[in-house]
Amino acid sequence: MSNQAIQLLNEAMEANHKRSYYAAYPEQPKAYGDEATSLGLTAFQQRLNQNYTELNTEEPASWIGEEVSPYMQTGLGIHYPAFATETYITKAQQAWDGWAALPVRNRAEVLVDSLERFKARFFEIAFATMHTTGQGFMMSFQASGPHAADRALEAIAVGVEELERYPAEVNWVKPMGKFDLSIRKNFKPMPKGINLVIGCSTFPTWNTVPGLYAALITGNPVIVKPHPKSILPIAMVVAELRNALKAAGLNPDLVQLAPDTVAAPVTKLLAEHPAVQMIDYTGGPAFGLYVEGLNKTCFTEKAGVNPVIVDSVQDIKAVQQNLAFSICLYSGQMCTAPQYIFVPAAGVRSSEGTVSYEDFVAGLSGAVKDLVENPKAGPFTLGAIQNELTIERTKAAVQKYPHVALESTAVQHPEFPDARMYAPVVLTAEAAEIEGNISELFGPCVLVVKTGSTEESLALAAKAVAEHGAITCLAYTQDSAIMQQIEHTMNRTFTPVSFNFTGAAFVNSHAAFSDFHVSGGNAAGNASFTNSDFINRRFVWVGNRFA
Amino acid sequence: MSNQAIQLLNEAMEANHKRSYYAAYPEQPKAYGDEATSLGLTAFQQRLNQNYTELNTEEPASWIGEEVSPYMQTGLGIHYPAFATETYITKAQQAWDGWAALPVRNRAEVLVDSLERFKARFFEIAFATMHTTGQGFMMSFQASGPHAADRALEAIAVGVEELERYPAEVNWVKPMGKFDLSIRKNFKPMPKGINLVIGCSTFPTWNTVPGLYAALITGNPVIVKPHPKSILPIAMVVAELRNALKAAGLNPDLVQLAPDTVAAPVTKLLAEHPAVQMIDYTGGPAFGLYVEGLNKTCFTEKAGVNPVIVDSVQDIKAVQQNLAFSICLYSGQMCTAPQYIFVPAAGVRSSEGTVSYEDFVAGLSGAVKDLVENPKAGPFTLGAIQNELTIERTKAAVQKYPHVALESTAVQHPEFPDARMYAPVVLTAEAAEIEGNISELFGPCVLVVKTGSTEESLALAAKAVAEHGAITCLAYTQDSAIMQQIEHTMNRTFTPVSFNFTGAAFVNSHAAFSDFHVSGGNAAGNASFTNSDFINRRFVWVGNRFA
Repeated sequence: MSNQAIQLLNEAMEANHKRSYYAAYPEQPKAYGDEATSLGLTAFQQRLNQNYTELNTEEPASWIGEEVSPYMQTGLGIHYPAFATETYITKAQQAWDGWAALPVRNRAEVLVDSLERFKARFFEIAFATMHTTGQGFMMSFQASGPHAADRALEAIAVGVEELERYPAEVNWVKPMGKFDLSIRKNFKPMPKGINLVIGCSTFPTWNTVPGLYAALITGNPVIVKPHPKSILPIAMVVAELRNALKAAGLNPDLVQLAPDTVAAPVTKLLAEHPAVQMIDYTGGPAFGLYVEGLNKTCFTEKAGVNPVIVDSVQDIKAVQQNLAFSICLYSGQMCTAPQYIFVPAAGVRSSEGTVSYEDFVAGLSGAVKDLVENPKAGPFTLGAIQNELTIERTKAAVQKYPHVALESTAVQHPEFPDARMYAPVVLTAEAAEIEGNISELFGPCVLVVKTGSTEESLALAAKAVAEHGAITCLAYTQDSAIMQQIEHTMNRTFTPVSFNFTGAAFVNSHAAFSDFHVSGGNAAGNASFTNSDFINRRFVWVGNRFA
Repeated sequence: MSNQAIQLLNEAMEANHKRSYYAAYPEQPKAYGDEATSLGLTAFQQRLNQNYTELNTEEPASWIGEEVSPYMQTGLGIHYPAFATETYITKAQQAWDGWAALPVRNRAEVLVDSLERFKARFFEIAFATMHTTGQGFMMSFQASGPHAADRALEAIAVGVEELERYPAEVNWVKPMGKFDLSIRKNFKPMPKGINLVIGCSTFPTWNTVPGLYAALITGNPVIVKPHPKSILPIAMVVAELRNALKAAGLNPDLVQLAPDTVAAPVTKLLAEHPAVQMIDYTGGPAFGLYVEGLNKTCFTEKAGVNPVIVDSVQDIKAVQQNLAFSICLYSGQMCTAPQYIFVPAAGVRSSEGTVSYEDFVAGLSGAVKDLVENPKAGPFTLGAIQNELTIERTKAAVQKYPHVALESTAVQHPEFPDARMYAPVVLTAEAAEIEGNISELFGPCVLVVKTGSTEESLALAAKAVAEHGAITCLAYTQDSAIMQQIEHTMNRTFTPVSFNFTGAAFVNSHAAFSDFHVSGGNAAGNASFTNSDFINRRFVWVGNRFA
């Protein structure tokens, strides 16, 4: 293993244990170079209206692709090689043996090499992400580039630790009185088999690489089935993985891309294939339940109803601005975005006196409007709406909760006049109105719920999460007893709580090597980036004994 | 935590990591005392025909019990307190909070205390095991006493390690250029909830305590549902757990016993109750599939078709004697006992020339007969048959495979003339006869299959295991290439292989702190004593953030 790879891996393993580093992956901004942005843009543009040949596959059964830029609302015209289901399976099986036989540190070296290659293309992948997901450029760069690579490295690090957990070989001695019984034993982490990784449209690399790298480090072949509208970013990651495998003299078919179209989906064909042992899935809850019902090893991230509990604050404006940013960021298309904000009818205590419920709603709406209308920040924070249906769903939410505190503000992107944009709406409701009406509010929409007390806010939040799941909970309180109560109650629903976030701390962000992403304990998903189960469920310890 | 408990726990954690100790639990035979056997017998006898009051419960809804000694074939007459399903659930929930709030090291201290109390009753539990399961006294003592306590301690040790895996609290710092963003974070292992542990009739403590202690160390309440014919041994363990909880000032209802009868089973009522989050199950595959289909966190040990592959040997007699003992031990009622013995038609190479297939079968049959007819060893090795149905199933196997190499030898127990005994039968079949006919051969029955070659033996064994699962595989070969091939192929079916066992090494034995019991990777079960998943799937990591 190269010295650089060893050092990176060791740092990553230490960081994972301490869970106190921002990131182990060296971002080295200088290394990106002054011209990195324009080079990345050019590289992206050169891919448009071409067959994507970087996967270096055999001649495929067909070339397919139907991605549309949410910024330009025109097709990217990129076509990807597609094969029959059995072809993917056969090639995965052929590539498996050599990889499974490789010691875990050698696998880690190849995978770290793929991340180095990935890093060299962060800017290009950023533009690919922007024009498939609608994310703003900064988020596209961070989420699809370094932050995704961090999550991949995290999976490698936890993988190495887990696979080295027990001695490869021991001599076991049992005292029998007159003699000792001595048996040599070995312990082998045996990979389970083909791992299907199903991507989503909004975070095509960030949500895909944890399962992808977890499957690989544990010795399994992977078929990546991207969302048909967000293929390019992960295609580049797969291409670099295949390049790293080839450079190591290994069969690149260990990692295959299986693109499809909305009209002719292949996900179920792959998921139900008896040779597919494991499935990673990010996406809507209906399909997630289907995946969980297949009785295979599966890792899901579905949807939740992330609550915010506002009890008391230090600085009300700072809280409203923080919330406004978390609501506006990528127009609420993050799985970690706040959805239901619970505020007592008696108002919010602050260092400058009690802020009435009405004033809180008005202040929050104003903060959202200010951010959206700020020409230097608004459009770039909002990004574009990935899917037209998201706007339809937001309009449906407005019909369901007709008390509109802030209508969607008209907003134009300075560079992309055709961008599909829709600024967040702020809705309000009485507590009684949400009873039996709770569902995910994905997209540019937030509901402020008027409650009888913080106690009721907490009870409503906990009930909603127990039934529908949540990935995050944000809470504001200056009272330590209430803080403990919120922490305890929400943790019992397996939801992490972020307290009193203002300034640069945002509930939406989950840092690799520190924050577990999704607890795996409620309806929002059954897996967690990256706890040990996310690794261990992909292989089986088998111990042999030699007399 | 007491010094003794700390030392025991530390040794157990180290032993688990090294997987090289025989056992961490100090057996201290001297401490048992010269009169331990007779005291244990008296204590057991005094329980007969009484209500079992050691659980110190409230007045129950009813007193039930229908255990029958396989040695005496008379009822034990012991009745256990039984409650309505909702009573168990309510009491479990009431006891949960206090236990969940306790730091893991404090939980460990209480659990280690319960093992010390358990240890003081090893002899009494041995007689209880003997007269419910039919095991011989020595096995009853070892399996239900020290070996079960070892497995319980292993679960505690792995539990402490897993729950201390991440720092309870960290300060996370993200460099933001002009300033650092600093956030305090905590990481909490939140218990999932009520854990139902369903016991089996043959190993009432050994197969129950791993799930029981794993659930407890991770902070969950437990309801133990023993097999209606094997209650007493685990009732004593539950009683001592309740005593240890009470001594620590905790609510003993954290651990409850829920006995039932064959005519009025309560297992499904408990398993399907929405408050029951987790289920441990040991028993038949049909009910195991039902448990796995409930979509709850579950840990199963079902059944398998343990193969033996005989290729070449050093000393044929030593091999036949070893196999005979493994077949006779507890009359094949162990989940680890050999069932299908694959032998090439061309015979078995040995240091004294090739042993023909016919001679191998004759020698094996002779070794079984010799052991069975040895009055000092036979009856005590065989024990009694727990369930009449096991004899019926053996007779059905004889009808299916009518080539009988050794009929069941008549055998009398010197102490118990009414003991339900049935010595093993040795059957033979051609490879073609087992095609499509493979099923578990539980009990006093073994099938020697004549194959075309060791290669075919391995292919048949691997196919049987891929379809029906296996817990063990035993192989004899003097050829290192064949050894590697067997190891690789069987490991790919997630079955551990024991090679060339003779003398005191028996395939049936799985030592705590060394051998994983069940790999969890094939149809024999989805869980493993005790890998980290056996612990981690019982709680959820939740991380909170404080700005």
